[in-house]
Amino acid sequence: MDLLDDTVPGIGTYEDFNTIDWVREKSKDRDRHREITNKSKQSTVALLFSISDAFSGWLLMLLIGLMSGALAGGIDIAAHWMTDLKEGVCLNGLWFNHEHCCWASNETTFQERDKCPQWKSWAELMVGVSEGPGLYVVNYFMYMCWALLFAFLAVILVRAFAPYACGSGIPEIKTVLSGFIIRGYLGKWTLIIKTITLVLAVSSGLSLGKEGPLVHVACCCANILCHFFTKYRRNEAKRREVLSAASAVGVSVAFGAPIGGVLFSLEEVSYYFPLKTLWRSFFAALVAAFTLRSINPFGNSRLVLFYVEFHTPWHLLELIPFVLLGIFGGLWGAFFIRANIAWCRLRKNTCLGHYPVLEVVVVTLLTAFLAFPIEYTRMSSSELISELFNDCGLLDSSKLCGYTSNSGSASGSVNATAANGLGARLAGPDLYTAMWQLALALLFIPSMAVGAIAGRLLGVCMEQLAIRHHERDIFRGWCSPGADCITPGLYAMVGAAACLGGVTRMTVSLVVIMFELTGGLEYIVPLMAAAMTSKWVADALGRESIYEAHIRLNGYPFLEAKEEFRHKTLATDVMRPRRGDPLLSVLTESGMTVEEVERLIADTTYSGFPVVISQQSPRLVGFVLRRDLVISLENARRNQEGVVSMSPILFTECDPPMSPSAPPAVKLRSILDLSPFTVTVHTPMEIVVDIFRKLGLRQCLVIQNGRLLGIITKKDILKHMAQMANRDPDSILFN
Amino acid sequence: MDLLDDTVPGIGTYEDFNTIDWVREKSKDRDRHREITNKSKQSTVALLFSISDAFSGWLLMLLIGLMSGALAGGIDIAAHWMTDLKEGVCLNGLWFNHEHCCWASNETTFQERDKCPQWKSWAELMVGVSEGPGLYVVNYFMYMCWALLFAFLAVILVRAFAPYACGSGIPEIKTVLSGFIIRGYLGKWTLIIKTITLVLAVSSGLSLGKEGPLVHVACCCANILCHFFTKYRRNEAKRREVLSAASAVGVSVAFGAPIGGVLFSLEEVSYYFPLKTLWRSFFAALVAAFTLRSINPFGNSRLVLFYVEFHTPWHLLELIPFVLLGIFGGLWGAFFIRANIAWCRLRKNTCLGHYPVLEVVVVTLLTAFLAFPIEYTRMSSSELISELFNDCGLLDSSKLCGYTSNSGSASGSVNATAANGLGARLAGPDLYTAMWQLALALLFIPSMAVGAIAGRLLGVCMEQLAIRHHERDIFRGWCSPGADCITPGLYAMVGAAACLGGVTRMTVSLVVIMFELTGGLEYIVPLMAAAMTSKWVADALGRESIYEAHIRLNGYPFLEAKEEFRHKTLATDVMRPRRGDPLLSVLTESGMTVEEVERLIADTTYSGFPVVISQQSPRLVGFVLRRDLVISLENARRNQEGVVSMSPILFTECDPPMSPSAPPAVKLRSILDLSPFTVTVHTPMEIVVDIFRKLGLRQCLVIQNGRLLGIITKKDILKHMAQMANRDPDSILFN
Repeated sequence: MDLLDDTVPGIGTYEDFNTIDWVREKSKDRDRHREITNKSKQSTVALLFSISDAFSGWLLMLLIGLMSGALAGGIDIAAHWMTDLKEGVCLNGLWFNHEHCCWASNETTFQERDKCPQWKSWAELMVGVSEGPGLYVVNYFMYMCWALLFAFLAVILVRAFAPYACGSGIPEIKTVLSGFIIRGYLGKWTLIIKTITLVLAVSSGLSLGKEGPLVHVACCCANILCHFFTKYRRNEAKRREVLSAASAVGVSVAFGAPIGGVLFSLEEVSYYFPLKTLWRSFFAALVAAFTLRSINPFGNSRLVLFYVEFHTPWHLLELIPFVLLGIFGGLWGAFFIRANIAWCRLRKNTCLGHYPVLEVVVVTLLTAFLAFPIEYTRMSSSELISELFNDCGLLDSSKLCGYTSNSGSASGSVNATAANGLGARLAGPDLYTAMWQLALALLFIPSMAVGAIAGRLLGVCMEQLAIRHHERDIFRGWCSPGADCITPGLYAMVGAAACLGGVTRMTVSLVVIMFELTGGLEYIVPLMAAAMTSKWVADALGRESIYEAHIRLNGYPFLEAKEEFRHKTLATDVMRPRRGDPLLSVLTESGMTVEEVERLIADTTYSGFPVVISQQSPRLVGFVLRRDLVISLENARRNQEGVVSMSPILFTECDPPMSPSAPPAVKLRSILDLSPFTVTVHTPMEIVVDIFRKLGLRQCLVIQNGRLLGIITKKDILKHMAQMANRDPDSILFN
Repeated sequence: MDLLDDTVPGIGTYEDFNTIDWVREKSKDRDRHREITNKSKQSTVALLFSISDAFSGWLLMLLIGLMSGALAGGIDIAAHWMTDLKEGVCLNGLWFNHEHCCWASNETTFQERDKCPQWKSWAELMVGVSEGPGLYVVNYFMYMCWALLFAFLAVILVRAFAPYACGSGIPEIKTVLSGFIIRGYLGKWTLIIKTITLVLAVSSGLSLGKEGPLVHVACCCANILCHFFTKYRRNEAKRREVLSAASAVGVSVAFGAPIGGVLFSLEEVSYYFPLKTLWRSFFAALVAAFTLRSINPFGNSRLVLFYVEFHTPWHLLELIPFVLLGIFGGLWGAFFIRANIAWCRLRKNTCLGHYPVLEVVVVTLLTAFLAFPIEYTRMSSSELISELFNDCGLLDSSKLCGYTSNSGSASGSVNATAANGLGARLAGPDLYTAMWQLALALLFIPSMAVGAIAGRLLGVCMEQLAIRHHERDIFRGWCSPGADCITPGLYAMVGAAACLGGVTRMTVSLVVIMFELTGGLEYIVPLMAAAMTSKWVADALGRESIYEAHIRLNGYPFLEAKEEFRHKTLATDVMRPRRGDPLLSVLTESGMTVEEVERLIADTTYSGFPVVISQQSPRLVGFVLRRDLVISLENARRNQEGVVSMSPILFTECDPPMSPSAPPAVKLRSILDLSPFTVTVHTPMEIVVDIFRKLGLRQCLVIQNGRLLGIITKKDILKHMAQMANRDPDSILFN
């Protein structure tokens, strides 16, 4: 397939908001590879070039891993520092966050690690005393001011410089990976602005997860780095392989889970994921994870803030609360998706969409106002999750570990608990305070934290139940008095998995991410039970994940690979022209003039035309793309001598006999795709959809008994699918 | 596509040694699903049936997991017991193996766990005394007798009852999963015999890995269990999804690595692996792993015999020896594959193949004769690997931990080492003995153990180097005197991964399996470095993995999905009929009689015929399978009144006008595939190969300008690929 007429620039490229032709791109790459291999036998330089070409993919992966890891580390450090900046400042150095400030101090006791004289809250700094009645109000005010400033900066930056930097980015990345072209979506401006605004938004305390933006950041890195490698710069299919790997990198740095990241990319994001990409993604994800670890943003030599180790095995009966958490997660996921989509639709359709800055400012003010009084909403969501996942040790000073001893004599005191051991973990007043604060915090926090809170609450309830009723039959064989038998931290983790699963409908990748967080095979079963229940419950309420729902809301031309097309329609029902429409616009392989073709181009908007033997005998010869045709005709008019409007256009192999006085013919066989995909009119649409998905087609011609009858494009299929699902087929944005 | 004429039995099934049509099977399943969904709206019973149908896949997975896990546990226990039976017997009870026998005994000290009076070696039992000059010889003799007996039994059982039970099984399973039918390969006899012979062969001390046979066993379980579910019994494509999951289960129980198992199935074995299967495989693999763990065959609550925990981090410079191990693994893998294939070819082509029993007996005798004197070859290979991976603790009594203290005063004594701490781990004489024994053992042991031995040897060398030269610049910042800095166990693990990688060319799945064994993200980088180097080195010496080499040796019709077809041939070069051959055998949609069609069937061996409008105008109408045609004609002759040899055969939609005296027509449109796949003559073969792989086609018709010119079958493609690679195209077994 010699589509690559390199002499005419522009042929073989795509316009913005168009879908790529995977088959053509892959052929181009194979041609390129063949050429390099052939040349490599001729000279040593060419051989070296061939070797460097083979390894360029690995080098690219290394660079993506290093760059994304470094950026993620920077984002974590900056967000940590700015979150603390809302509360106060370190006198030893402005660049220390609260924790580092007090680490550096010698005057801190182990019990009160977060109190040290060097760290001043804004009120202390402004009023000058360290205790007093107005301090709380001043701190509250400063907290809101900072949050507002961060959020305002973020939204202004996005609007001014990079509108594509808004949102999670995963729906768009899925669409791009499926073959759509959105220029600038993964460009350098998007990268810079996304990185800065991610820090600002996280610091302002807005409820958002970091994984989506980090995937977007990693994909931007990949796209920018691709420009340095010809192999990837000039081939849209190869570049998408790299982007698939980059999305694995994004998840790898977000959760510190390289294997989970690769599975996430495979399961959730990617469209075309050959085994070679699997291996390279894994490499890149690992490099990124280790880069992040050597930056050590959390100061604990771990990849993530919430690394946990549990010590108590779980009991089979605990599967019941785990499944309950799964049901909660599924319900919550379905509710969240509906609420989110309803809000976005409202913003799209009403005047609310005209004031995004105002919207963000109001939401931030409201969040900050509600978040400050409660300890658990004031901290960053990753700190919160970390605290919730934590298994209470002997020296934990958190309120969540505010257990009292069994005798009740030393109630509430943390020291007394530690002294008595954790034998009987009856809840003390501190824990009760923590519990209702958590219950309040449930209301305005991202999915993972909601699940973690719900899980922790259930876990503590279960624990108290088991301790107070340890003589009951049900607990007897399982909870001996004086020993831990229920780990509330595990419940928090299961709850987090359930909610994340309900929203994203991830399955294996979710369980593997959580497995990499805990590092124990033991806890896979609870996680799996919750993730499965959550997915089933959420699927029963609505098939789409949050990403798919957003893809549909925005009308992106995305052909979902997961759901099977189950209707009994045939190709003839979907192809155009429909009954009653004008005939299909075709070119004939000979007999048309430049003028006729130009008129056809001007009159229609189709992105390609089938070429047939003649209008009377519509037997298919090939397919020509509009863009290639336009460029070639312009080129012929400009560069080929004697071409006039009456010049014949020839797609044939041999020239037909012509009179010597006739104007010279424009020969266009080189831009003709001689192997267009065809199906018969009787082909069931389920098979057509399958072919489109698996081969990544843009269009397919429909034939009956050797005669060309119509054409099916990806847009036709998407419209048909929307129609079959009783949705508006015109909502699909597509060129 | 109404291919399913359920009224005529046999239509839509396949013969042995045929390839299935994935597109047709998937359509059948979608039809089935549609029917159930439609019915479920009508009655409650149908609704319940529809729900149970939806969950039957999960139930099947649960059963496969339970059954495979139980079988794997049984195999482990039996093999352990029988391996020990070669050396002696337990007086407390014949069913105890050596370890359990001495656990039950109270007279054992911790240092000499494996010596207790209840355990009698054969010589002690027969001669009656516990020490003496002849004992060694008697034990040696008995060891060889038992080994011989086990091996003889194994080979006799395989030959008598289930010839398919021989070999690793993975090449055949790959072929079956790609759509080939080998009846009985996954049947109950194969399962029973494979299970028994696996135990016998492992116990006899033959050099073989367990992972291949366990994958085969799991697939047999899956295939047998499929028979209880209509959905899977009657659909070859659906059954293959289940088998893909089963191969994940096999690896999961072989290594105790459920995630690694799923990735192995995805990367190495499966052909069609939709995301749904990913999730189900993971579930089944997890169930199997937990079943195995609750059987607890190794008595250590772990999933595998060689669970390890390392305590010392690795240094960046250690990547050099790790890469060296990778190179060794790659070389060894390439060598092993060549030697193995050469041996198999020898057996196939010479009279050696006629005496398999003799071959096995001789090999066993030789192995047993050489293995007994060396401690490391006498133990089972999993015990050996476990010992090699082990990090020497304070109380280890193994010779491999025979370090001496730095002063040299208490050289060689294990107790002295323990007392002095492991500060300076200078090698003692015990360790030296172990080292040369290991070096000898290198010669006759399966891949993983070879790698582990090589790794351990290199690790100990590095360790001694570091200890003796700790003042050198290179070691100064890394190995402070008195502290461990090199873990020989880690080297063993890296070496094992490298060799396994060189032989099987696994990548991600290998690293993940090893990661699941160690449980630490820390050690992924060394493993990855070794696995990558090993794959590159081995690929440079020969592209094929051991599985692919065996597939090619046996001529299975397997279309490799990993390697791209890189030649510039077109469909016209591959299609049949070739230039000069007789014309393509076609049927016409009307105008042929029963007799003519029957003659065509008798004269040709093609498995299907295109149907065209007429011989003069070969425009394609559809495609009909030979088997369906034969069955339908027989059925018509038997059941339809008045059908004679002169009856016309009609594939048309409407009946053409006929004279009333003419015999009744046989209408066969229902068996006609109206949507055969077509490509044009100009389609590059790389695209044709891609279509065959991705859609799972059996054949494809070749068209030029609407006229049918030829046909390409999977066999033609495989032959063409063999030809392009300068191999004999006639080596492909295919119907």
